[in-house]
Amino acid sequence: MDRLLASSLGEEPADIVLSGCTLFNSFDCTWEETSLAVTGGRVAGLGDYRGVRERDLGGALVVPGLIDAHVHPESSLLVPAEFARAVLPHGTTTVIADPHEIANVAGAAGIEYMLREASRSPLDFLFMLPSCVPSTPGDPGGATLSASDLRAFLGREGVLGLGELMNVPGVLSGDREVADKLALCTVRDGHAPGLSGKPLNAYILAGLQSDHECTTLAEAREKLHRGMFIMIREGSAERNLADLLPLVTSADACRCSFATDDRHADLLAGPGHIDDCIREAVGLGLDPELALRMATLSPCDRFGLADRGALAPGRIADFCVLEEGREFQVRETWKRGVPVGEIPYREPELLRTPFRYTPPGPEVLRIGGDGEARVIGLVPGQITTRALRFPVHGDGIPDPGRDLLKIVACDRYGRGGVGLGLVHGFGLREGAIASSVSHDAHNILAAGASDREISLAIREVVARDGGIACVRGDEALVLPLECAGLMSGEPYGKVAARLGELDRMVASLGGIPHAFMQLSFLALPVIPELRITPRGLFDAAAFRPVDLFVGRP
Amino acid sequence: MDRLLASSLGEEPADIVLSGCTLFNSFDCTWEETSLAVTGGRVAGLGDYRGVRERDLGGALVVPGLIDAHVHPESSLLVPAEFARAVLPHGTTTVIADPHEIANVAGAAGIEYMLREASRSPLDFLFMLPSCVPSTPGDPGGATLSASDLRAFLGREGVLGLGELMNVPGVLSGDREVADKLALCTVRDGHAPGLSGKPLNAYILAGLQSDHECTTLAEAREKLHRGMFIMIREGSAERNLADLLPLVTSADACRCSFATDDRHADLLAGPGHIDDCIREAVGLGLDPELALRMATLSPCDRFGLADRGALAPGRIADFCVLEEGREFQVRETWKRGVPVGEIPYREPELLRTPFRYTPPGPEVLRIGGDGEARVIGLVPGQITTRALRFPVHGDGIPDPGRDLLKIVACDRYGRGGVGLGLVHGFGLREGAIASSVSHDAHNILAAGASDREISLAIREVVARDGGIACVRGDEALVLPLECAGLMSGEPYGKVAARLGELDRMVASLGGIPHAFMQLSFLALPVIPELRITPRGLFDAAAFRPVDLFVGRP
Repeated sequence: MDRLLASSLGEEPADIVLSGCTLFNSFDCTWEETSLAVTGGRVAGLGDYRGVRERDLGGALVVPGLIDAHVHPESSLLVPAEFARAVLPHGTTTVIADPHEIANVAGAAGIEYMLREASRSPLDFLFMLPSCVPSTPGDPGGATLSASDLRAFLGREGVLGLGELMNVPGVLSGDREVADKLALCTVRDGHAPGLSGKPLNAYILAGLQSDHECTTLAEAREKLHRGMFIMIREGSAERNLADLLPLVTSADACRCSFATDDRHADLLAGPGHIDDCIREAVGLGLDPELALRMATLSPCDRFGLADRGALAPGRIADFCVLEEGREFQVRETWKRGVPVGEIPYREPELLRTPFRYTPPGPEVLRIGGDGEARVIGLVPGQITTRALRFPVHGDGIPDPGRDLLKIVACDRYGRGGVGLGLVHGFGLREGAIASSVSHDAHNILAAGASDREISLAIREVVARDGGIACVRGDEALVLPLECAGLMSGEPYGKVAARLGELDRMVASLGGIPHAFMQLSFLALPVIPELRITPRGLFDAAAFRPVDLFVGRP
Repeated sequence: MDRLLASSLGEEPADIVLSGCTLFNSFDCTWEETSLAVTGGRVAGLGDYRGVRERDLGGALVVPGLIDAHVHPESSLLVPAEFARAVLPHGTTTVIADPHEIANVAGAAGIEYMLREASRSPLDFLFMLPSCVPSTPGDPGGATLSASDLRAFLGREGVLGLGELMNVPGVLSGDREVADKLALCTVRDGHAPGLSGKPLNAYILAGLQSDHECTTLAEAREKLHRGMFIMIREGSAERNLADLLPLVTSADACRCSFATDDRHADLLAGPGHIDDCIREAVGLGLDPELALRMATLSPCDRFGLADRGALAPGRIADFCVLEEGREFQVRETWKRGVPVGEIPYREPELLRTPFRYTPPGPEVLRIGGDGEARVIGLVPGQITTRALRFPVHGDGIPDPGRDLLKIVACDRYGRGGVGLGLVHGFGLREGAIASSVSHDAHNILAAGASDREISLAIREVVARDGGIACVRGDEALVLPLECAGLMSGEPYGKVAARLGELDRMVASLGGIPHAFMQLSFLALPVIPELRITPRGLFDAAAFRPVDLFVGRP
């Protein structure tokens, strides 16, 4: 007889029995005092069991492993192995990952890389296939993925469905390529910021089942009412939890979850991951049991994962032992019946993507002419921008006195092209910043107070085939992102520390907090109002390229 | 562009728009005032729509079509077409059907018959494949279905998974044939009356996901806690709703549903179906919204049916318009956007299974000898029996004066064999009853006050290749069950009326209520204590055949 079955029946001892558990039951949101028997990484049973190893937890709270319902692991700036090492101690045991960023850089090879690294990781990465590569035809990155490219990944271990479908117009117009992608999978994540009324009905009717882009309670409620599973997002920059939390009731917690979408390494290493979402939600007044339901069983229901989300016979033995006290703090995380601290670390492999680009000298970055210039206006804490106008004079730009920095976008994929523009809101009095993380094409973006420093910052990024750099005079501080220009291969603590140094250096130059996160969204041509790409300024509201100077064609 | 998408967007009128709906939202158990737009049998959208046809419901309550999570339609004594006609007006639009009864009679051909009839029905029959045919090797019926027999039905339209797995010992011992059946499907219904503790853990671990056999609250709570989906059963004979209802909370209503398992035509035609369960639950104090959740979205979640269970874009437009007033009464049922009264009726086909049996004359039924006899004791309202003992004398039996009737079981499948016994509790002062519905092998069972009347009752059943008969002297009243010996091809109203006549005739003979339902379980050798089969008396507690007289081998 099967060893797991035998230990479930009590005919053989379990591998380990944890007695004295106060166990969270995800099925009805109650707590139960019992023992947990684990064999072969699965829950053998709850109740009175004997084990080869036994340990008394003395009544400690035990909850199922936490789940992130939607995340781009690349956004942490960590390779999967380090992402896992960062989040496992915080209680996360499964993430639903959409490798959208690396797919935009490296296409199918990028997805293969993530699948391969995931298969070597103790953290369970389950994948949604990136549906929008590139996110718009007008902003090509390093690859294009068609429905037939994605089809090759169907049936692969860990592949659950189709990732967030951002091409809302394509869905609503019945576009053939979009329809082909929708037809690939039965599980499909949506992405429909602000969509409401009839277009929302049509988007749902087309087969999109979830949304993580709600920013207002009314939006979330309408989407829930129309059948969408709502992922309440709390990322580094996109923070929707406080606004959306009143949505959650005991009747609908089964249709809501947490998601982080994009969280930098420093946030993961410090405040944490889904545990941080739970603390925040409970601090805002949500019943802890409902927060736990959202973090465990609910995403499993959404994705059809019957093998986790609860501590019940046959399910994977992923769980967290909590610290005593009122606040939710994970003391130990167990993955497949093993404390994560005992799981051997496997060195990550990297996907190197040499930059096909010769950095421009300062002279290339010069903007000539006088007149009224279009200026990208940052909106702190948001990824939208405003289209501002400033009178500028010939060589008088950049003009840190008016917080008018130069912004430069360079194509890293060998197509040439340097886009030049102006940006207001970074606050840098001197120096420059540059990054190869720029959604969604991930070209090189730089902003600074002098052409010379901008040129140097770009050079630092290109020299490492990717990175985040801050320059002051001849001094440069760099976080190399040698894995696809998106991720560091270094340990997460080191990455988090370097991010902290970079933030402090930016601050010392007068720059705003989260300057790199803000920078990374300035090339997104699908979000209003004004953007910069390697092809120049782009009016995202009118959806057309524009000249720097008003009145010029 | 797709017509449904276009009408969802409001670019084309919907087929029909029902305005003035007070709509139940299954996702968060709230009510919403809106209009419902339907195109091509699907929900095009909710909100402000125009339609080719428009109707104002004046604020009437509208709820999604009701769902029975587990039923053997054959137990209604109606063919699928008539079962549908009986339940549709009560608001049922989908049933999860396990054709266990007809499969025990006719094997794969029985399942094929149900699939074929289902495909012609406006009611959606979705099927779980009968996992236990026969239910025990010791009680063969007309067929045996192996895992490979069942495999032939995988992927067929309307087939969802594996039906209630009654062979608990086979599951717990890791039996190969049972394991092969479990491996066929990912959706598997359980059947584990009274199972608890370690054996329950092991049963769940083996892959059984639901249970509809709970009879106590503690049993239901343990099964829910261990991960089972709980179907609260309220059939003709098995009534568990009142006992189990305290299980349901707003946190776990998503993991509970109603099920009727076995309901006769008269109950369906009169009090009703799932609507009757809702009324009863609400009468017992359950929030109407939680009852509705259990009757709509919850079973869909359990069975992975994303196309129904709620009135949301793209889902099937199955719904009920309710009568005004506090009690739950369905005024109109709509199936795929059409009022059920407007859907044309299609004449059912029948599966005829000629009985291979020559009815015994009265002389064959004679029991000789004196002594202490084992007597089956009925337990009113339960399917368990008691093993009683009475002193009996030679030709003095049956002995209606002591309520000692003769009970006879005849093999209808041509294997020969007549089992003779005694039964206490039917109350008949004269006459006899017989039926070809006798779980699970569906041989012929008869009980009566004289051998002559018993013989005649059996003759009436055999002459029609199946039926339910009551005899008094030479007078016989019969409900022919010419479809597989289990179902009548007559309209449901006529069947219900004839059942009423039969019940009244039994009562006029002194018999107890529901005598035929009680009779139908007396051949079930898997449920204690004493049973009768064509091979004689069977001690179901000791699991061995026994003689009528105590002390004989």
